[in-house]
Amino acid sequence: RVNGDRLWDSLMEMAKIGATEKGGNCRLALTDLDKEGRDLFVNWCKEAGCTIKVDQMGNIFARRPGKDDRLPPVMTGSHLDTQPTGGKFDGVYGVLAGLEVIRTLNDFNIETDAPIEASVWTNEEGSRFAPAMVSSGVFAGVFDLEYGHSRADLDGKTMGEELERIGYKGSEPVGGRKIRAFFEAHIEQGPILEAEEKTIGVVTGAQGQRWFEVTMTGAESHAGTTPMNRRKDALLGASKVVTAVNDIAMKYAPNAVTTVGLMQVSPNSRNTIPGEVFFAVDLRNPEDEALSAMAAELKEVCEKVCAEDGLELDLKEIWYSPPIAFDADCVKAVRGGAESENFAHRDIISGAGHDACYISRVAPTGMIFVPCEDGISHNEVENATPEDLAAGCNVLLQAMVARATL
Amino acid sequence: RVNGDRLWDSLMEMAKIGATEKGGNCRLALTDLDKEGRDLFVNWCKEAGCTIKVDQMGNIFARRPGKDDRLPPVMTGSHLDTQPTGGKFDGVYGVLAGLEVIRTLNDFNIETDAPIEASVWTNEEGSRFAPAMVSSGVFAGVFDLEYGHSRADLDGKTMGEELERIGYKGSEPVGGRKIRAFFEAHIEQGPILEAEEKTIGVVTGAQGQRWFEVTMTGAESHAGTTPMNRRKDALLGASKVVTAVNDIAMKYAPNAVTTVGLMQVSPNSRNTIPGEVFFAVDLRNPEDEALSAMAAELKEVCEKVCAEDGLELDLKEIWYSPPIAFDADCVKAVRGGAESENFAHRDIISGAGHDACYISRVAPTGMIFVPCEDGISHNEVENATPEDLAAGCNVLLQAMVARATL
Ligand SMILES: NC(=O)NCCC(=O)O
Ligand SMILES: NC(=O)NCCC(=O)O
Repeated sequence: RVNGDRLWDSLMEMAKIGATEKGGNCRLALTDLDKEGRDLFVNWCKEAGCTIKVDQMGNIFARRPGKDDRLPPVMTGSHLDTQPTGGKFDGVYGVLAGLEVIRTLNDFNIETDAPIEASVWTNEEGSRFAPAMVSSGVFAGVFDLEYGHSRADLDGKTMGEELERIGYKGSEPVGGRKIRAFFEAHIEQGPILEAEEKTIGVVTGAQGQRWFEVTMTGAESHAGTTPMNRRKDALLGASKVVTAVNDIAMKYAPNAVTTVGLMQVSPNSRNTIPGEVFFAVDLRNPEDEALSAMAAELKEVCEKVCAEDGLELDLKEIWYSPPIAFDADCVKAVRGGAESENFAHRDIISGAGHDACYISRVAPTGMIFVPCEDGISHNEVENATPEDLAAGCNVLLQAMVARATL
Repeated sequence: RVNGDRLWDSLMEMAKIGATEKGGNCRLALTDLDKEGRDLFVNWCKEAGCTIKVDQMGNIFARRPGKDDRLPPVMTGSHLDTQPTGGKFDGVYGVLAGLEVIRTLNDFNIETDAPIEASVWTNEEGSRFAPAMVSSGVFAGVFDLEYGHSRADLDGKTMGEELERIGYKGSEPVGGRKIRAFFEAHIEQGPILEAEEKTIGVVTGAQGQRWFEVTMTGAESHAGTTPMNRRKDALLGASKVVTAVNDIAMKYAPNAVTTVGLMQVSPNSRNTIPGEVFFAVDLRNPEDEALSAMAAELKEVCEKVCAEDGLELDLKEIWYSPPIAFDADCVKAVRGGAESENFAHRDIISGAGHDACYISRVAPTGMIFVPCEDGISHNEVENATPEDLAAGCNVLLQAMVARATL
């Protein structure tokens, strides 16, 4: 059994880095705060006797040797970066649950056959740098290194530069090595487990996502003197698309979700008609075909609005992460862990993307969900109970030890 | 007759300060560039023999003495600040036309009975600091000094601080002195004069404006895991209001214009449902009653959307500038000037607010419009011909001399 108090204390310690007034965290990828969080994790892992490796995308691997250290490791991990108004658990839990597994194995002097690794993946959130899960994506060969390093934030700073700046551009090649099995523990980030009073979600897969960047260009003009019929108002056009994006989710209910989370208006002056609006669209569906149809509708509505309102359209799909199914044996190992510990559990599909989704392309992979309060995540009030977090960590321990045994 | 070439050259010289790549100007109120523009104007006026006074709102008065210097001055003027994507003529023309009148009087050694003053009014645009025409408003007693100094930009910097910083917080009290008559020359900023091939617009009044600040607050939440029916999406709500604001203009056609020019989304992350959106609404109508009805509809639609979407609403009217009519004698002086010079002219109502609107509360006031290309303003491509600008300046000269004569 893991030490639930120690896990909780570590979570609370990490949450001090980038703590926000409302009790959440703002620790954007590759900022000074992200470096602080990484340093803390690395120190803890060293204290636990691990060796540390950092790859060229800044992914961190803390290794506890196995009896046969030539065997590929059983790995766990998640991310330390957060949303701008993020919580204390999203990602961090999966990282520190990995550390807690290692500490527990140390406590009981357990030697596993295969090595155990706890990992941190760079820029999972996709908030500062789009898309999400970039660095697990490079690890899995979905993106090349050049693509990873060239992702830029809204100020034009790239991941490559920022990795260098905070000292986490490691020397290890990214990916290309074997993993015996990968498990990621995470809060559910949705309302299902809590509503059904389940302690453990046995994650069988994740829905697909398509991300778009849209720029609509009209013409700046005077708000007081320009007749309505002579306007090319980019914000009016963008607003029509925002409501249409919402309609797409309704049409593909009940499983589709659609969001416009980011919008920038230019020149952003009260009495000037907006000449350009940039916004991002996030479409999701567990069914790949429906997801494609949603994307086609987005394109259609953008074209229609721009044609009607005299706007120029630049619509780019910047990310496609297809629906995935996790490895049947890993899913079974998670379910088995939950059953052996007598935790109420159910199978569940992840609404969010996770590093495990990309790792699943190169290694047998499974995920463990625990409930979070009111199903709320990407919000400073994000919360989970010490008991549920310990439960998920115990399932992780079980699953990892099982898979690390010859 | 004024020297049209000299006027044009001065306009082009001023346009170098804050010149943008697309040929426009970005010289926001009380920035270093605004200071540079003010310094240039002050130097030119000193070279023309004027004495300079600056009041506590940074309004600048360049005075050419009259035969009887105890008489209240005949004043002209406008503003040097621009929109973020502004043009070379909006405001600047009215300021430099005043200088050109003084230079012309010097050329011909004309002594007027009353003194002549050319003025610059601080933050007319209302872009960096809302509302528009703040400092002519303080001069006219519409706002008090404390209100003027406390206007803040989106970064929280106040006009008082910024006036101090750039050295234009003068010592003169704001307003409270007599003006014999005030005239402002300006580009039309709309399409009417050009379409009707008129050189001069005899401005009889200006439409009313109401400005609002709206904050809609929902709840940040995960874009992938939050079911559509559990969302409180502040950007979706704001988008509905943007399209409804456009509908209000349609309903009150043909004279109403409505604009959402500024919007800020928080936390502005692609995969987080926006928890808060701040935006500004600009409603205009030449009829005061219709303008009030439009404001009531805005309030209604904001309340309806927020009730439906589970959002909190904070709706503030931050500015009301009622429709105004200019002084009959000043309007006649402008029309007379256009007629005596044989310029094609028509009466016109201003769609924009101008410093003259506030000055009209404390002095007999008139305005002169000249055409601008395609009716476009608040855009870097804003343009006007040297001939039209000289024509407007000649009308200004005529009107000012007529009113400066006992
Ligand atoms: N787990 C998580 O919040 N990942 C961010 C990527 C996504 O939006 O699905
Ligand atoms: N003339 C001008 O553009 N003034 C700004 C205030 C307004 O938007 O009417």
